[in-house]
Parts: sequence; structure tokens; C-alpha cells
Amino acid sequence: MALRGPLSRLLRTQLRHTSQQSRHQSVAVLGAPFSKGQKRGGVEHGPKVIRDAGLIERLSTLDYSVHDFGDLSFHHLEQDEPYMDVKFPRSVGAANKKLSSAVSRAVGAGHTLVMLGGDHSLAIGSVSGHAQQCPDLCVIWVDAHADINTPMTSPSGNLHGQPVAFMLKELQDKMPDIPGFSWTKPFLSSRDLVYVGLRDVDPGEHHILKNLGIQYFTMRDIDRLGIQRVMEVALDHLLARKQRPIHLSFDIDAFDPSLAPATGTPVNGGLTYREGIYVTEEIHNTGLLSAIDLVEVNPILGANQEAVEATASLAVDVIASSLGQTREGAHTSIHSIPAEKTDTEQLCL
Amino acid sequence: MALRGPLSRLLRTQLRHTSQQSRHQSVAVLGAPFSKGQKRGGVEHGPKVIRDAGLIERLSTLDYSVHDFGDLSFHHLEQDEPYMDVKFPRSVGAANKKLSSAVSRAVGAGHTLVMLGGDHSLAIGSVSGHAQQCPDLCVIWVDAHADINTPMTSPSGNLHGQPVAFMLKELQDKMPDIPGFSWTKPFLSSRDLVYVGLRDVDPGEHHILKNLGIQYFTMRDIDRLGIQRVMEVALDHLLARKQRPIHLSFDIDAFDPSLAPATGTPVNGGLTYREGIYVTEEIHNTGLLSAIDLVEVNPILGANQEAVEATASLAVDVIASSLGQTREGAHTSIHSIPAEKTDTEQLCL
Amino acid sequence: MALRGPLSRLLRTQLRHTSQQSRHQSVAVLGAPFSKGQKRGGVEHGPKVIRDAGLIERLSTLDYSVHDFGDLSFHHLEQDEPYMDVKFPRSVGAANKKLSSAVSRAVGAGHTLVMLGGDHSLAIGSVSGHAQQCPDLCVIWVDAHADINTPMTSPSGNLHGQPVAFMLKELQDKMPDIPGFSWTKPFLSSRDLVYVGLRDVDPGEHHILKNLGIQYFTMRDIDRLGIQRVMEVALDHLLARKQRPIHLSFDIDAFDPSLAPATGTPVNGGLTYREGIYVTEEIHNTGLLSAIDLVEVNPILGANQEAVEATASLAVDVIASSLGQTREGAHTSIHSIPAEKTDTEQLCL
Repeated sequence: MALRGPLSRLLRTQLRHTSQQSRHQSVAVLGAPFSKGQKRGGVEHGPKVIRDAGLIERLSTLDYSVHDFGDLSFHHLEQDEPYMDVKFPRSVGAANKKLSSAVSRAVGAGHTLVMLGGDHSLAIGSVSGHAQQCPDLCVIWVDAHADINTPMTSPSGNLHGQPVAFMLKELQDKMPDIPGFSWTKPFLSSRDLVYVGLRDVDPGEHHILKNLGIQYFTMRDIDRLGIQRVMEVALDHLLARKQRPIHLSFDIDAFDPSLAPATGTPVNGGLTYREGIYVTEEIHNTGLLSAIDLVEVNPILGANQEAVEATASLAVDVIASSLGQTREGAHTSIHSIPAEKTDTEQLCL
Repeated sequence: MALRGPLSRLLRTQLRHTSQQSRHQSVAVLGAPFSKGQKRGGVEHGPKVIRDAGLIERLSTLDYSVHDFGDLSFHHLEQDEPYMDVKFPRSVGAANKKLSSAVSRAVGAGHTLVMLGGDHSLAIGSVSGHAQQCPDLCVIWVDAHADINTPMTSPSGNLHGQPVAFMLKELQDKMPDIPGFSWTKPFLSSRDLVYVGLRDVDPGEHHILKNLGIQYFTMRDIDRLGIQRVMEVALDHLLARKQRPIHLSFDIDAFDPSLAPATGTPVNGGLTYREGIYVTEEIHNTGLLSAIDLVEVNPILGANQEAVEATASLAVDVIASSLGQTREGAHTSIHSIPAEKTDTEQLCL
Repeated sequence: MALRGPLSRLLRTQLRHTSQQSRHQSVAVLGAPFSKGQKRGGVEHGPKVIRDAGLIERLSTLDYSVHDFGDLSFHHLEQDEPYMDVKFPRSVGAANKKLSSAVSRAVGAGHTLVMLGGDHSLAIGSVSGHAQQCPDLCVIWVDAHADINTPMTSPSGNLHGQPVAFMLKELQDKMPDIPGFSWTKPFLSSRDLVYVGLRDVDPGEHHILKNLGIQYFTMRDIDRLGIQRVMEVALDHLLARKQRPIHLSFDIDAFDPSLAPATGTPVNGGLTYREGIYVTEEIHNTGLLSAIDLVEVNPILGANQEAVEATASLAVDVIASSLGQTREGAHTSIHSIPAEKTDTEQLCL
């Protein structure tokens, strides 16, 4: 909550100063209004509804310098026939190429990147652009789905269910040459990836996860271990050997559909609000978060305006919590309790 | 999710083969459209709405051989005066006698039985029929209520609040000779029964639970121990001495009313979706589940169609998870990642 | 559930007798229809809707002697200009003075007090009146907010965000002389206070909490430790040195807004129903609960009648559980299972 009381303006001024000194950080917000990685229209409006839910204002209260770079514009391709069962390969490839360059520039300029999707196929561009600047990054993928199908295992042919397969070095020889993707090649080792929230994993995906020894936590694992222990193990897996930049790729469908109804592939039994926020608090507390994707908010799929706003507001909470908003009120610091009766030397308790 | 991709048909064929080899199991589905164990009309439509929610199709995707034996038909009795306060004793007795025979035949034929209620008084017939084939069975009763009143302690006289009292050897001398029940006698020891999910226990029931030393876990116990530990203790209590068949008697009102609104006696503070699914996953993982009751889905009591469908869909999830559906996608196995670029000898990673 | 069966009337008579012998307790219910501690109309109707939800009947089934003292009447002050930013200081001061006297009399007469608000500024009167009779009391504050702003740190100037600051000895020299409050002075040490449920803490409040070393548990702490451990530590903190009376000050907004929508300052990510009930069960089990505030139920803010009734019903559950209602059914005791076939000497198992 913003301070509005009599001495609060003074406090706020002090706080801004303090926070900027301690943070030295700026955030770049980049919209990617793209939906060709799946078949349901509407997810291209995700950036707009997340901004309308107050993202920029919220980040400003966290004392970041916020740079909103607006939305990328993606060109419509007239000719984009399926390749094997893969749908819109050239459109998805071109959009991700453009996104990859933009992300690389933003990270290179020193910003913490926030990419607003759009569908989850956009992670191909976002993570690869980030990796151009930070080759030793690691990825935390929070999602109901593993999104690790190859074109051959995919039940649907939609590319938003396949982005991880494009990133992993270990899957390189399982991937066909899909038109639109000649600009990128695998850059991530499977040990540098952790999943949180899985609960709808295709048989082919399960085989890949197991065979590559990928660290993943399904909702059943969270039920068994608790989210506290899950995050402890997840972060230890990624960071114990060395501290390095984190890319958080957050699909809003990781949350239970009762919390995030406006999304394309909801699955029952998801993260609670508190678990989702806890995940992001823990990631923030590493001090290593370097880029965030927030994807799959689809305002057309909400049953009503309330459902859309709840989903978009949740997206804002996820991003703000990833960037330091706390439930304890410590995201801004105060160094004394103002007192009327006492002198200034008593300001510090 | 079903595989639909280019190589997925081949994979599926392989999977079916593998699964049938490893499972050797068939499931018998039996509807029991009966409601005289309580006073609210509509629960006799439970079998229909659970089937309409896709039960048979779902079980088929788990590679069981599914035999739907349709619904039993129960005769209306013109004369069925209360005995003491017990309502419809002859109707409930006759229905359970018929159900008991049918369940005994199905289990005897080697099927895993799924009984769709109807109200929970049907457990008298279902468990007794199961016990005819498997005298050493044990029972896991997942419910908001203990359903262990005797005719003398029952506040309501409804038999759906009393089925366990008809089963327990230790209560034999507390039970009057109720018309309609001469065909059955107690067959279960109190140590072979565990409750999960209790939160509305009548004073007489509490006395019985304590005095018979029955192992039970209220919602408070789940709050204290966590569902993981509860299931560990519950299964250890029943199975540590010997491995034996499990009868799962699942009342949909074990779930929180926000998840299962279409039921007759909802009580706040119930199981979450994830806890309910975890319970059934753990039971499946024993490899000992032999019969399931899914009772008290009452489509007339849902506030709207959405509430009814949510409740029925939840019932399907409970049954499917009890029978092996996993959140990790491992309910079907794949032995290789198909690759375009590589030869067949490289199919196995 | 009330017993209604054939022998249940006899049992009930026995139970009443037993319970009164073991409890020796009476409950005083006192309504405080006051809303000037905040800006939203409607919270003055809290006492009515909580009574309409069946509070008195529910407490009666717990075998207390229930004394409903009705509602206090508060006089409207024509002249009540803000002092600094503090709104309605004289109205809030006068209401709390009146409430403090009434609470002191009720506690002095041997009742366990239940104060129905009204907004949370009323805790100033309720806790101070309680402390007049029980100077060594301790306070458990269950709330989304810390309500510990001083007039100088308060962002809003509303007194329902400041009551704790009026109680704490350690903040005495930070408090200006606010008109309307000359009748009270700080009486509580910061080590005799514990918070549960915080998730929207103002920067000034965070500073106070930290500097005074107050024991508090945010929702993040509950996520990390679990509610079971939180209550263990909380009660140990307050009671390990000595057993003493507990004042429970429960703001309904401690619960998640999905459970308690009809309230003025809802915050996402609150207590579940089960966590809230667990908190009160644990407090009851100490045997030391001496007074309860139940505040901030605002029927005008519910989106519909259902939302209002859910919130009021939740308030009744909180109070009943604090006063001994259990999920296990043990709030009334039975000493035998009635049997028809056997003689009376066999009544005890």
C-alpha cells in the first residue's frame, strides 16, 4: 500500500533514495502479442490486459526504473502450411526470431526483462535471446504442462507444447529441420532446467523427462514435499554448483483454474495463490532473476470480465512478487518511527 | 491426453499391448440408482451423471478392459413403515441384498469393481458382496461423516448414516433386528477399517469410534499431519501385517463443498482436489485396490448445471486416479523418443 | 448436529449435565455496531448478520450458558474534525470508552466475552476493558493487516488501522494526544502480542514490528512452517513463561477473500477455512481463552446475499470453534452405546 499520511511523503522520498541505491536496477517490459503457437484466438491480447491490470504502476511502487518498450509487431504470413503435424512453423519461427533479438538487446542493456505473452511458444525466442547475453543461465519453468514434446511426439502439433524441445542440446538429434527455425539452435543443457507445477504430461514427454533426468516437480510432488521443500531442492539443483542468471518462464496455467480461468489449457489441481507467490518470492530472494516470461493469459476465454481481471491481476502479482514485492511489507525500508512528542535524536528506536 | 500425432498411433498400439500385459485387469462398472437411505431425492441419478461425465471413456484410455454392466433396477415397496426411527428399512435392505449379489459375482469374475451410487447406505451391499469373495478385505472410508450410527444413536434415522454399523462385528450386539436385513450379518473387524476426511461426527459416533479404537483421520488430523503422512499411517495400519484387498468407499462429500456442491450433506472445510487425488493415488500404488464405491453425487442439489458437472467430473477423476491415472503422465509407458534424423538403433536414448 | 433419535433426548439430558459440570462457563455476547474507525459504511451491521447466522443457537448447543447483552448504542457526534490525518477521533474514542466499560463488567462477572464488531478500532476498548480485569492477559491478533500504524505512519488516517499502537507501552512516546482517548493509556507489552495471517503490512508498520521484536507470522511464514507449527510457536511464545488469559482479536479479513468476501479491506492469499478453524481449535485447547473480538464483517460489501451469509456463517464458525466446537464430534460426551438386545450392565463397552 502506498503511504499517504502526513510524514509519509517525506518517508517515501527517503525510501526511493534508499531503494535505488540498494537496487541499481531497471526493468524492461516487452509485449509479445502472438498466438500462432496454439489454436485458440485471444492470447495475443495478453500484454494489453496485463498492462491494464496495473503492471507498470505496481512495478514503479517497487522503486524500479521501469521501461515499457511496448509491443512487438509480428507480420502475418500468407503461406504457412503445416510441416509434418506442426502448425504455423514459419510464423512461430519468425516471431521468435524477432523476440529473441529484442530480448537480447534489453538484457544486454542491463534491464531485468519482463516478456508478456502471448502463448508459450514465445519462450523459444525469449530464453534464446536471454542466453545470447547470459550463456550460463538456468531456467525455471512453472507450468501445468512440460511443453517438451518434439514434433514427433506432439499429440496436437501446436508449438506452444514444444518450446523446450527447441532449447535442449540433448534433444538436438530428435528434432527435424522445421521451416522458420534455422536462426536458432539448442543452447540449454537438461540439467539447467527445473519444472514446477506439472500435472498434465503427455506419455512422450514423460519418457523424455525421465530419460534426460530432468529435475521436475509435479503437483503430486508438491503435495508430498510441500512447496517450501520443492523450491529449496529446485534452487539447490540449479545454483549449488554456481550462482548464475535465472530465467523464469511462468505459464499462468500453473495456477489452479479457479484462480486463472482465462487461459487456453486449464488443468484442475493447480498451484494455490500462496504457492505461486511463494515460488516467485524464493526466486527473487536468490538475487539472480534476470528475465521473466508471463504467458498464456487469454482474455477471450474468461467466462466474464471478472474472470479475465482475476487472471490478469494474478499475472501482475506474479511479476511483482518475482521482482521483490513482499507480503511482509519489507519491499520498502523505513529507518525510524516518526514521533511527535520526542526530539529527533530519538527517532531511531 | 490422448496421442494424436503422426507416430502416436504406432506408439499407442505399442502402449496398449504393454499395458495389458502388465495390468491383466478388467474393470466392472455397476450403477445403483438408489436414494432411500436418505431423504433427498436426486441421488438415484448419480450413476447417469457420472457416466455422462465420461467415466467409461476415461477408464478406456487407462488401457483397462471396461465392462459396463449398466444399472441395477430396484423394486418400489408399497409398504415400508419405519422401524423404531429407521426409515425405509425394507427398501434399503432389499436394494443392498441385490447389490451384494451383483458385486460378489463381478469380483468373483475377476473384475475390479466400480459401484456408482446412489446414497452411502449402498456400501452395506457393496462391501458385503466384496467380502463374500475376499473375506480378508480391508476398508478405506473417505467421507465427511463416519456413517457409523446405530439405529439407537442415529439423530435422523436415515440409513445412509449407519452402513458401517451393519458391517462391524464389534457392534453386533448393539444392533436391533431391522426388517430387510436378515440376509446379512457383520463381517468386518474394526481394526480393518480406516476413515479419512471426517469433520461432522455425531456424539454417539464419536463414542463408538473411540471405544472400538477405530483408526480415523479427521480434517484436523490432516491439518496437523498433512495428507502424505495420513495416508502413510492409514495404509500401514491396514497392510503392515498382511497384504490384502482394499475396498475404497468414497463419499463425494469428503471434498470441500466448493468442489463437490451437488451432494446431500455438504460440510465446510473438506478435502482439496489435490488431497483427494493424492489419497486415491496412494491407494492405487498399493496394487491392492479391489473395489470402489463412489456415492452421494446428487445432480438435483447443484445450484446450476456447472455445479453438477463439476461434481460429476470430480467423481470421474477420483475413480480414474484410483485406477492408475497419474498426474505425471506415466499411466502409459513409452520406450523411446522417435527421431527423424536418426536410425532405429538410436531410438532408445 | 443435534441429536434427534429415540434415545438421543435422554443422552442429551445427560450430556448437558456433564458438560456444565466440566465447563462451569458462561458466554457473554456483546454487539458493537460501530464503523467510524474506517470509511466504508455497513460494518455497523456486523452484529446483526452474525446473530442472524445463528450464533446464539450454535453456542447453546455447546452447552454454554449464553447471555446476549444485545448491542451497545453509540452517540453520534456532530463535531468531530480530523486531528492531524486521524479521522473521527472523538467518535472512535467515545465508542471505545463505552465498550471498554462494558467488556470490563462482563469479564468481571465471570463471562467469556464475545464482542461482535464493528470495525477493528473497537479492539482498543475491548482489549483495554479485558485488561482492567486481567492485567496479565496476552493477545493473539488474527488479521491480514498489522493495525499497528501510529497517527504519524498511517497512510489513510483510519483508526481501524491503528488500534494496536494505542495498546503498546513501547509506542507510548510515539503517540500524539488524540482527542477522545484521554481515558486510556497503553497497557500491553509488545512481547505479549502475536500476529497470525499478515499479508499487507505498511512500511511504517514493518519497521515497528521489527524494531519492537514483535512475534508475527505472515502468510509466507504459514506457507513455510505450516499452520500447525505456527500455532505451536505462537502459543509457546505467549504461554511458556506463565499460563494467563488470552484475548483473541479476529479480523474476518484474515481469511481469503474467496471465503470472507463481505469485508472492507480484503487481501488475496489469506487463511483457508481449515487454517482459520485450526487456529481457533488450538486456542480453545489451551483452556485460557477469556475474550474474543470478531470484527470487520460488512454485509453491504458482499456482492450478493450468498456472499454475506458465507461471511457471517464463517464468523459463527470461528467463534464456535474458539469456544470448543470440534470437527471430531467430541464437544459433547457420551458414555455408552445404547443397545436394544443387551441389558443395562452392558451399556459401557
